[in-house]
Amino acid sequence: MKNKLLVAIFAILTTSGFCFAQTNQPAIIEDFKPSTCNQPGQEYPKVNSQGYARFRVVAPQAQSIVVSLGLGGAKGGTPLTKADDGSWMGTTAGPMDEGFHYYHLTIDGGVFNDPGALNFYGSTRWESGIEIPAHDKDFYALKDVPHGNVQQILFPSKSTNTSRRAFVYTPAGYDKNAKTKYPVLYLQHGWGEDETAWSVQGHANLIMDNLIAEGKIKPFIIVMTYGMTNDTKPGGIRSFNYNAFQTVLVDELIPYVDANFRTIAAKDSRAMAGLSMGGMETHSITLARPEVFSYYALLSGGTYTPAEIKDKSQAKLIFMSCGSRENPDGVKKAAVDLKAAGYNAVSFVSENTAHEFLTWRRSLKELAPLLFK
Amino acid sequence: MKNKLLVAIFAILTTSGFCFAQTNQPAIIEDFKPSTCNQPGQEYPKVNSQGYARFRVVAPQAQSIVVSLGLGGAKGGTPLTKADDGSWMGTTAGPMDEGFHYYHLTIDGGVFNDPGALNFYGSTRWESGIEIPAHDKDFYALKDVPHGNVQQILFPSKSTNTSRRAFVYTPAGYDKNAKTKYPVLYLQHGWGEDETAWSVQGHANLIMDNLIAEGKIKPFIIVMTYGMTNDTKPGGIRSFNYNAFQTVLVDELIPYVDANFRTIAAKDSRAMAGLSMGGMETHSITLARPEVFSYYALLSGGTYTPAEIKDKSQAKLIFMSCGSRENPDGVKKAAVDLKAAGYNAVSFVSENTAHEFLTWRRSLKELAPLLFK
Repeated sequence: MKNKLLVAIFAILTTSGFCFAQTNQPAIIEDFKPSTCNQPGQEYPKVNSQGYARFRVVAPQAQSIVVSLGLGGAKGGTPLTKADDGSWMGTTAGPMDEGFHYYHLTIDGGVFNDPGALNFYGSTRWESGIEIPAHDKDFYALKDVPHGNVQQILFPSKSTNTSRRAFVYTPAGYDKNAKTKYPVLYLQHGWGEDETAWSVQGHANLIMDNLIAEGKIKPFIIVMTYGMTNDTKPGGIRSFNYNAFQTVLVDELIPYVDANFRTIAAKDSRAMAGLSMGGMETHSITLARPEVFSYYALLSGGTYTPAEIKDKSQAKLIFMSCGSRENPDGVKKAAVDLKAAGYNAVSFVSENTAHEFLTWRRSLKELAPLLFK
Repeated sequence: MKNKLLVAIFAILTTSGFCFAQTNQPAIIEDFKPSTCNQPGQEYPKVNSQGYARFRVVAPQAQSIVVSLGLGGAKGGTPLTKADDGSWMGTTAGPMDEGFHYYHLTIDGGVFNDPGALNFYGSTRWESGIEIPAHDKDFYALKDVPHGNVQQILFPSKSTNTSRRAFVYTPAGYDKNAKTKYPVLYLQHGWGEDETAWSVQGHANLIMDNLIAEGKIKPFIIVMTYGMTNDTKPGGIRSFNYNAFQTVLVDELIPYVDANFRTIAAKDSRAMAGLSMGGMETHSITLARPEVFSYYALLSGGTYTPAEIKDKSQAKLIFMSCGSRENPDGVKKAAVDLKAAGYNAVSFVSENTAHEFLTWRRSLKELAPLLFK
């Protein structure tokens, strides 16, 4: 089962590009603005109101530059052409999906990042990122509301003989409300990403700040750590084994967080969620250690079946989501089957998104109000 | 005075390269290991026990690749040569200084980062970084000691009409010792860097963790924020004006930190330090607002004169440092002059380092035990 899921996720990662139809594209509107993921002061890459992206790279003596949008190469990517001033420019062949996309440049046969864009850890390397403004971007916008903090912790890990890094979101007021204790969501990144993903490209902290400010959820803590514990050579998803990570998470990180933060250290106040490969980990670990978590969530990370769960009282919530360009019918059917078997199961489909971060930002927004009821 | 300092700092930034003599270099010992700043799983760049650095970049159709080590281009940098397998390789012409160096690649006339190395914000952009292991690297090593946390805060700033980011180091035990209050060091980055610098390439958190674990200092908090507040087009150091930053720091950030962390909110428990341009800011702001800080520190960031300080009781400590390859005599003389005038002044010179981060890591290690006495 595990291996099937791994191969399925790997297949998605290596084949899914962006869905832009190759014909009948609308005329390009010349209202391009710098991407919100650009480095300070950089004009390119730019994005227009339709979702087209335009790139400009300076390398006067280069022979060829291609923008390889996202995993799988987006059907060959976007070739840039050289202008008289030595710069290379090009525009995507059509509008891209809303949300965040990883990409890189292929320059003269080598893989480099776009000097105009910020880097984000994905595909087991720091990649360039671009943001196509989403129509619903307000829910993860930086607003004038009380803000929680995201802190880097270094926790001791005997099983891996080192201090390991995690990021902990504590909601606004955590430091002032010195007697309040909080539930905790353990939230995992996907294959090739790391513990920075959810609070950088995921905007998990801003999603939480906004939901709390609107009174839509009660505050809780989120903990994010690196999930490919035994992956000494990044990229080895086919040989990935979740046992090393399970030990770090359940036997080392959770006790450390419970000892060092004001948590409600009980199964009923603990959730685990993960995207893609992090969903696979969530699936495996929640089933293997049913005494630890009460809330389970798989974001583009597979499904549960009633037969897998030993005891109906084991899970208070089973949340499964994906983008509409992934396998929405599978996710919906799994929720129907679980509900029919008496489980509190919820499915969510993110419209017009694929195996990318807008799907997961939206999933977190939908999941958060359902937790710790 | 301010403009002179700015020009001096700018001159250092744009002309100082790495000091490797061009003649009589020792024979290269083939014990190269991956740099500790490499991306996960990447073999190159590599560094040997003598301090030589070796680079390898894959770009089969490129015309030329030059590694431009650090600000000022290191006397033309290190050209790479093409091998039969399409990769480009090269080794520095001599051993480099110990410590951390920013660099980038020039590929076919364009500036890109090395795909093998992690990126660090310097020179107003995310640059590649490489680490030459220092003989005294132990003081900033990740050890099995209690670790403090580094947390990202978003604080409201009316003067700039946004939520601004800062990083706050809280020492180990901060969350458990719920009644302890702590002094605070406000610690600034240099020109072209940002609020990430001190806790990433600076290892400020590890330096503090180790000093505290060894009983060499009493725990205190460190706050790091972006210092080029009015710099809408990154790089404009000549037109830089510290007033906008002074407002953010003194009138917005300090009150926020005092309200949201367990600080001792008093002048005698507040220090300001900065490196390079951050030293210039420290110099200006400590003099302009003498009621705010009692401890002043300039790290490769100029000096104070007795005449500038209005009142001898104003500063409990004046710390000035630089690398031995900078202006050590100026720093030493300033301390002598201040001492002669009755001030508690201390100078520190980092041996065999230039205007780079090993100078500043060492400076923080020397400064910390002198604070809040």
